[in-house]
Amino acid sequence: MKARRAGDAGSGQIVISIHNEPQPTDLGDVRVANRAVVLRHVRLHAPCSRADIAARTGLNKATVSSLVSELIDQRLVRETGLTENRVGRPATMLVLDGEPYAALGLQISADELVAVAIDLGGNRLLTWRRAFAAAAAPPTETMRALAALTRRAIGRVSAQGRTVLGLTVGVPGLVDPTGAVPLATALGWRDVPVAADLRAALRQPSFAVGVDTVANLAALAEQRHGTYAGSTDLVHLTGGITVGAGIIAAGRLLRGGRGFAGEISHLCLDPTGPPCRCGRRGCLTALVGLPAVVRRLLPDTADDDNPLTDYLPELTRIVALARQGDPTVLGGLAETGRQVGRGAAILADLLNPQVVVLGDHLATLAPWLLPAARSELAARSHAPHAGGCQLDASTLTTAAALGGATAALATVEAGRPPALT
Amino acid sequence: MKARRAGDAGSGQIVISIHNEPQPTDLGDVRVANRAVVLRHVRLHAPCSRADIAARTGLNKATVSSLVSELIDQRLVRETGLTENRVGRPATMLVLDGEPYAALGLQISADELVAVAIDLGGNRLLTWRRAFAAAAAPPTETMRALAALTRRAIGRVSAQGRTVLGLTVGVPGLVDPTGAVPLATALGWRDVPVAADLRAALRQPSFAVGVDTVANLAALAEQRHGTYAGSTDLVHLTGGITVGAGIIAAGRLLRGGRGFAGEISHLCLDPTGPPCRCGRRGCLTALVGLPAVVRRLLPDTADDDNPLTDYLPELTRIVALARQGDPTVLGGLAETGRQVGRGAAILADLLNPQVVVLGDHLATLAPWLLPAARSELAARSHAPHAGGCQLDASTLTTAAALGGATAALATVEAGRPPALT
Repeated sequence: MKARRAGDAGSGQIVISIHNEPQPTDLGDVRVANRAVVLRHVRLHAPCSRADIAARTGLNKATVSSLVSELIDQRLVRETGLTENRVGRPATMLVLDGEPYAALGLQISADELVAVAIDLGGNRLLTWRRAFAAAAAPPTETMRALAALTRRAIGRVSAQGRTVLGLTVGVPGLVDPTGAVPLATALGWRDVPVAADLRAALRQPSFAVGVDTVANLAALAEQRHGTYAGSTDLVHLTGGITVGAGIIAAGRLLRGGRGFAGEISHLCLDPTGPPCRCGRRGCLTALVGLPAVVRRLLPDTADDDNPLTDYLPELTRIVALARQGDPTVLGGLAETGRQVGRGAAILADLLNPQVVVLGDHLATLAPWLLPAARSELAARSHAPHAGGCQLDASTLTTAAALGGATAALATVEAGRPPALT
Repeated sequence: MKARRAGDAGSGQIVISIHNEPQPTDLGDVRVANRAVVLRHVRLHAPCSRADIAARTGLNKATVSSLVSELIDQRLVRETGLTENRVGRPATMLVLDGEPYAALGLQISADELVAVAIDLGGNRLLTWRRAFAAAAAPPTETMRALAALTRRAIGRVSAQGRTVLGLTVGVPGLVDPTGAVPLATALGWRDVPVAADLRAALRQPSFAVGVDTVANLAALAEQRHGTYAGSTDLVHLTGGITVGAGIIAAGRLLRGGRGFAGEISHLCLDPTGPPCRCGRRGCLTALVGLPAVVRRLLPDTADDDNPLTDYLPELTRIVALARQGDPTVLGGLAETGRQVGRGAAILADLLNPQVVVLGDHLATLAPWLLPAARSELAARSHAPHAGGCQLDASTLTTAAALGGATAALATVEAGRPPALT
């Protein structure tokens, strides 16, 4: 990691980056970094000319020309017939190509498996959702189903003539740096070597197979494709059976020492609150997780020894009752919103994000949660105006799988050309 | 910020760094980055030879020689007479020089002002503590006293023939990116332009004047000079009148969108807890801040309309009573420890640091707080074994001022030579 330029004598706040250990750099690294700059410029500003890129990035024209030639050879960028309406010689315009490539994102939820494929520009090539009761199945069976879905998705994009650049799997639980899952409460998993199993099932593919939390990947999808795309500091509050946080800080995913950051499902909001499955009381999940919300709003729902694994009918019923103005449901949603706001206030005080984005069932219920949640956030956060932290609902579907596919583009986007098979 | 190398096909977790926008790089940047690498190597491994540096950093010998010559010219590095006991030609050994330089750190607390100067190697050149009731004084008076202390410290190191490379002031409150303080509850401050005022009082010095929170600077001092030096993910829990967190994540200070990250003094641990000065209940400060601890353990202490500003005598009395085994005080300390552990569990779940370090009065009381705090952390955090998060007391004194001086070295350590006056 290269050290950032520290502030000049006029700046109030020092950029302390040296502690992010400096790494030796050589000319190859310069070329890689500049290739990433050009690729990013084309992604964000296409169609654009070589001269535009040079003018806007500060790279010199010869460097841009040479890098663009390489990118065209690799089919990451292509020329269009268009020319800009300008004074002087018409310029050849560039856009992202990426026709021969695809990136895959997979997502394991308690009740479904999802596959998403995107091209280099982030356009979806396929979005498949397959009902699968992962919470009730043994991990080996889930992994088998995931591998089958993955092979079908690879087959589909390969049939389009695309090479897979990488894939990333999202799991609702802890993920360690080797891609194994030591704990996933929502799935009933302990110590499942997801990356190793999937690589074996795919017969050691030539592309990278990553694993990350659904919360991290959803945060990445928000930061790239959501309403608040481009935010440097953003939290995605992931709903479902448990609640988690995906944290983007200073433009990067915050992972923590062992990769377990954002595991806030058992963060205690109220020591006298309702009991949680973990044995404690008042955990965030016990207050705003989907099962807790269903129990609160639909007390007639059976809650026996055979717990629900598919909450979609209940969620649909809650939305219908809220739309009808059912006072009990509206009161319960406002109370849920206050708890969401209390959780968001902790995130705001500790992380000072520009926005906390609600996903999954919290997004579905957002019209009724947000008013109370926003009041609570404003009242409870320490910095004036909640430090500028907004609270809003995600507009993305299958965000974690989309984020997984986005993550799988990271190597190429960092300026390292795809290793073609 | 240069993009990090993403994981190869064998790695389980993807390094997503492209989202940290790539910046154009040129040969000058390469030299700066490599200069930082050499300087860091000498700092950590001196005495060492040019050949050692080349072998250990991967830079080639000619590059190392050229960079070392520059660093010697700038008197950042010097040759010693020592030669290593090795086969072959004896090598000239290098150590940090920095004789002509100093960096300053200042710290504003409710009851004192602190100045620390260090050399390039982090050795303290001076540590001055001056009793000053900043919480009771108007901000202009505090700023005047701070400027006077700063001028004296600059005078002292100048008299030693040293040029000041920079200074950073630590403030117990919110700090915005311009170096102004919108809010500092512990001082009763609102909207104080600390950096601008101090620069004016020092007649626009040629060096950088930075401002940061005491929590951030203390975290930096821990990461560089404390027991857990070198941790990539570390939280410093700063005590005193209010409680704050300085967060190092992935080797860098976590600041948030507006620079307000770590402001957890009013993080709610218990909605039915004791009242806080902010009007709410059960805030972290109302449970484990110094005034709260004194109130809990020494209920006979006057708590009238003229509140204490100097809690040192009370803290000393608490330590004495604890040493005598006073059961009420021990019980109160254990309860305080449990609350600290609950706060640490939130930090562990959300940030997954390698260690949470307690500072200030929490460090003084640590022998009695830590057992209960560690049990609570282990019991309340979600990841197995608290995700590897340790909880310990700081061994540093005047950590924030030391961190301020450390921060002021950042530009030079990033490989940018000092601008000599």
